[in-house]
Amino acid sequence: MDLFYLPHLDKHDAVVEFSPDESRHLCKVLRKNSGDSVYATNGKGIQYTIELQHMNPRKTTGIRIGSSIVPPLPYELHLAIAPTKNIGRFEWFLEKATEIGITHITPLLCDHSERTQIKMERLEKILVAALKQCQGYHLPALFPLTPFDSFVSQHPDALIAHCGAGEKKPLHSLVQGTQRNTILIGPEGDFSRCEIALAQSKKMTEVHLGSRRLRTETAAISACCTVALAWQ
Amino acid sequence: MDLFYLPHLDKHDAVVEFSPDESRHLCKVLRKNSGDSVYATNGKGIQYTIELQHMNPRKTTGIRIGSSIVPPLPYELHLAIAPTKNIGRFEWFLEKATEIGITHITPLLCDHSERTQIKMERLEKILVAALKQCQGYHLPALFPLTPFDSFVSQHPDALIAHCGAGEKKPLHSLVQGTQRNTILIGPEGDFSRCEIALAQSKKMTEVHLGSRRLRTETAAISACCTVALAWQ
Repeated sequence: MDLFYLPHLDKHDAVVEFSPDESRHLCKVLRKNSGDSVYATNGKGIQYTIELQHMNPRKTTGIRIGSSIVPPLPYELHLAIAPTKNIGRFEWFLEKATEIGITHITPLLCDHSERTQIKMERLEKILVAALKQCQGYHLPALFPLTPFDSFVSQHPDALIAHCGAGEKKPLHSLVQGTQRNTILIGPEGDFSRCEIALAQSKKMTEVHLGSRRLRTETAAISACCTVALAWQ
Repeated sequence: MDLFYLPHLDKHDAVVEFSPDESRHLCKVLRKNSGDSVYATNGKGIQYTIELQHMNPRKTTGIRIGSSIVPPLPYELHLAIAPTKNIGRFEWFLEKATEIGITHITPLLCDHSERTQIKMERLEKILVAALKQCQGYHLPALFPLTPFDSFVSQHPDALIAHCGAGEKKPLHSLVQGTQRNTILIGPEGDFSRCEIALAQSKKMTEVHLGSRRLRTETAAISACCTVALAWQ
């Protein structure tokens, strides 16, 4: 079942104009006809039923004939993660996290960050593509690249996952039935001593994700799975 | 810490000849000198200490001066998974599964398989690279592409994860402290009715991985995380 992303479809009976790519897909791949229906989402929990009207491989139009509310995840999961040097790995994380379940993503700028710039528009497109593919109705929120200190100031209740010394709790023990989860995942070189000290000074809870050495994006997906499992 | 993969290093005092790529890496990147040590593994749980002797960016040699046994995962995890049409996704799975923890992988040939051929040598290389990167000492075993019926005959105790109708148990409930785990993950179009019927006729346990719709490779990684978590 193909799902279309139409973020600005507010009004009933609103006319829908599909993009050239979507139009081509509707006409040539899905081979839809006038009068057929497709589903769309605004990424904010609404499922729209669109009745197709004018079929044109460059500009197909339709009309919104119905809408319903799709319940969100029963939990919030906010991952603050240092983007990887190889952006493909970060993009893979965005896709997998969307499939498994995530509500908020903040790219982090850390002392050991290997990537200090990101292209928001491209990353947003990846999230939208992942949402459509897994037929989700709630687009994860992607925040701008945020310095570690700022994020920690805004989220003192967050859990910080790191490989440094010291006593850490297993993540799974802290997310059982916890409705709001915020987890920080460091860059390949881990959080710096300064960053961990700052987190400790704010009494943030330090966690580990098991005894295996995981890449940044793998640690992040492992965290997504851990939270999802706690709510199964 | 760089880890080298030397599968045939059996004897103490054996002379080690590094490949041209490894030699260049040792001389130009790691800037090692004669007398320095590096670690290597044979992928079967042995950690070797190699003392470098002749430094040459095309042909560095060393001598094995020590070895120790590294304990394996406390569990076995055998994933039988239909390779994805996009081989990159399957390669990501191999890499992530090696990081998170897996012992055996069987590529499956199913009714709805979109990929009916695989390049074993390339996939082996990916597993080796993943092992070295995550500093693992136990290379996952990769079996040849196996038809569904054959695999099911050989592994009647396996769990089969599918999206079809019927009562299924959550995977996590079946892997708590289970030392041997074998799980089948179907292709994008899921297992066929015939395949599920065959599994049912053999009284195989049917499982689900939660309520979200997951791609093949995501389902496989989710299964790896679920088993790893059960053993944390």
